[in-house]
Amino acid sequence: MTEPLTAVDPAAFLAELASAVPVVLDPHVLMAYQRDQAALAEAGTPLALVRARSVDDVAATLRTASAHGVPVVTRGAGTGLAGGANAIDGCVVLSTAAMDGIISIDKVARTATVQCGVLNGTLSAAAADQGLWYAPDPASKAVSTIGGNIATNAGGGCCLRYGVTGDHVLALTAVLASGEVLRTGTATRKNVAGLDLTRLLVGSEGTLAVIVEAVLRLRVPPPPQATLVAFFDSLRKAGDAVVAIEQAGTPSLLELMDRTTIAAVEEHTRMGLDLTAGALLIVQDESLDAYADACRGAGFVAQTDDPEEGEQFLAARRLALPALERKGLTLLDDVAVPPPLIADMMDRVQAIADRYGLVIGTFGHAGDGNLHPTIVFDREAADTARAAFDEILAAALSLGGTITGEHGIGSLKTPHLADMLGPTERALMARIKAAFDPGNILNPGRAL
Amino acid sequence: MTEPLTAVDPAAFLAELASAVPVVLDPHVLMAYQRDQAALAEAGTPLALVRARSVDDVAATLRTASAHGVPVVTRGAGTGLAGGANAIDGCVVLSTAAMDGIISIDKVARTATVQCGVLNGTLSAAAADQGLWYAPDPASKAVSTIGGNIATNAGGGCCLRYGVTGDHVLALTAVLASGEVLRTGTATRKNVAGLDLTRLLVGSEGTLAVIVEAVLRLRVPPPPQATLVAFFDSLRKAGDAVVAIEQAGTPSLLELMDRTTIAAVEEHTRMGLDLTAGALLIVQDESLDAYADACRGAGFVAQTDDPEEGEQFLAARRLALPALERKGLTLLDDVAVPPPLIADMMDRVQAIADRYGLVIGTFGHAGDGNLHPTIVFDREAADTARAAFDEILAAALSLGGTITGEHGIGSLKTPHLADMLGPTERALMARIKAAFDPGNILNPGRAL
Repeated sequence: MTEPLTAVDPAAFLAELASAVPVVLDPHVLMAYQRDQAALAEAGTPLALVRARSVDDVAATLRTASAHGVPVVTRGAGTGLAGGANAIDGCVVLSTAAMDGIISIDKVARTATVQCGVLNGTLSAAAADQGLWYAPDPASKAVSTIGGNIATNAGGGCCLRYGVTGDHVLALTAVLASGEVLRTGTATRKNVAGLDLTRLLVGSEGTLAVIVEAVLRLRVPPPPQATLVAFFDSLRKAGDAVVAIEQAGTPSLLELMDRTTIAAVEEHTRMGLDLTAGALLIVQDESLDAYADACRGAGFVAQTDDPEEGEQFLAARRLALPALERKGLTLLDDVAVPPPLIADMMDRVQAIADRYGLVIGTFGHAGDGNLHPTIVFDREAADTARAAFDEILAAALSLGGTITGEHGIGSLKTPHLADMLGPTERALMARIKAAFDPGNILNPGRAL
Repeated sequence: MTEPLTAVDPAAFLAELASAVPVVLDPHVLMAYQRDQAALAEAGTPLALVRARSVDDVAATLRTASAHGVPVVTRGAGTGLAGGANAIDGCVVLSTAAMDGIISIDKVARTATVQCGVLNGTLSAAAADQGLWYAPDPASKAVSTIGGNIATNAGGGCCLRYGVTGDHVLALTAVLASGEVLRTGTATRKNVAGLDLTRLLVGSEGTLAVIVEAVLRLRVPPPPQATLVAFFDSLRKAGDAVVAIEQAGTPSLLELMDRTTIAAVEEHTRMGLDLTAGALLIVQDESLDAYADACRGAGFVAQTDDPEEGEQFLAARRLALPALERKGLTLLDDVAVPPPLIADMMDRVQAIADRYGLVIGTFGHAGDGNLHPTIVFDREAADTARAAFDEILAAALSLGGTITGEHGIGSLKTPHLADMLGPTERALMARIKAAFDPGNILNPGRAL
């Protein structure tokens, strides 16, 4: 990664920036824009905040920052979990949260055209008002922006059957570091004209361009889903059931919680979960008939055809992270392995917890093999927590997995990227980065 | 697009190439490797053919070609429909067809690791032997290679519900122009570590790197599908039915044929199709109940739960192109529009046919809005056919569509790319191309 090309003269830069867009310099406000939701990720002190209200604001900010060699950290709602939106010393934080309009919903073509700052939950509600469905459902959906969802290629529970955020992005408008406006893709479902710049921007974590508008695919809402909860006495049996379930069909949701997470949720809610279980699985589909045999290794199975009751079953899973967060500071990981190796991965996490004397609760999207081992620690044990975190990443790689399934590399995992990608891959990514951002001002040092 | 950097000394190049890999110079053999299946696409005279048998052969060819500034056109089975594998004067044709091994199928993780030259149909059969399913089903599947499918992001009928080729590619091994070996992606279902180089290579038509191996997603086979055929007296009614069908559910297949195509198939097969119909739709799903109301505008509907009988219904659609090809030379187009605009697009195609006095039969993947208007012409009317072809592309763009949904730009449509992509997008694609292939030896002048 090359360094910014020009030396920074902050006063000259700020004067020029303020002549183009409203600039916030109040240190108390800047502090509120310094971090996203990732624990233990470094954050610098920003020079200024720009709350963009238009594509022109974004372009003016980037053009000015490029001219002065000032780094720009783009930020949606700040709900990221990898420090990708954390400030860099001397940067401009470019908030796109105020660009939150739904430009149009085409009910017949089933597409939505939105500004990047619209919340996932706001779009989902607007789509539902038209009898349509925006499928990607990261846990943060009520409070995270579509722009941030795209920049991290956010996942969620529904992606097992319906795909991740990137599978729902048809076209993008983005601003390059030069201030030029880039338009990628088309509103059609298939398109192979030229290189797939849309997919390249998805998941690029603010390093290539600033996404300002998106055309998204909406779906017809699925039929009512039945829900099954199965408690297993061991992780191994739960892992075997995941494989068997996926041989029997493609559920719309297949989530897992381990014993530690079950205990945390039960302590928090007193909802009556089985504390002797080694793990539980939650499955949703139109019909659950195909999965009965796959769950025969379970000690206890409950199921319902009633969507509201199913939502109550899911409440335990939705409370997994909040319940663990009540027990101390948390460091949330985001590994993925091939689904048949889930039990092996969870065994390794447990061994790491035992070795470091840490509580680690693991839950996640079992159907995708995407797990969130969550380390609970005291402030003074931060180094220990970080060491355990690093070992979890190494364990995922040793099982042929990835160090991030849906949260991104951000600033938290950049030191680990070299363990996953070879020098040829990294050099190529750096050259692509330079093709977009030759001055290296967009989230420099992050994600790649 | 920059020109190759170094001047070519063919004799020195061939001597060096022949010392590294077996080289074919026989002009009769070279002629057989000069073209793919695209009519009216220009083809040059190759200097030599290399039939690669290994990654080392590919790397040696590219390294040598880079050193001498010789263009390389990579070729799978040569079934492409956009001239992307047509030779360039003085190029090396690099055939990967002999690298046709299935390296492994992981039945539990449902992945296949294959060499790029394996035929789609061979992989599909091997997956079926393991009780699994490789979903992407381009019409060429019996004779096209997985490498070519990936290089064009091939579609097919199943992609309406299950996604295109790119949705099934988890990881790639590719060789850069420098001869370096690049490994992208992981065998996991979700992965957001670094830029998505896998998706960038998908659909890049041999311009960025030579794909040599792929890890592909396999699926559990779907349940038996019921099939419905509906004849409509007008294109408009058929277009309305497409919209209504997609509001009622997501069929696994939704194909369309217009009156001209129906007549050609009936003439070819005498299968008893209704020649008075303006269009027919074919729908497949586990249950057809949801679509009864959507097809109420049809004059005649037949349906069957029997998969073999359903296959017979589909035969008409599968014979659409062969039947039109019996009527003269054909120029097959590949536009896509938002599905609600299918009838508008087909009206425009008919108006173009009338204006030029040409027969144009249109069929395609109605559910995706991806249509294949097929111009039937005599050799002496090639210019007229080409003019009509160009107008069809312009019509698709004017409806917010794309000039290629699943065949690629190749050499056939490069003149039209500037009508679809702006100068910012094209410049960026050129810079990305240069990041992969600084000497511009890989399919230069194509696709971007």
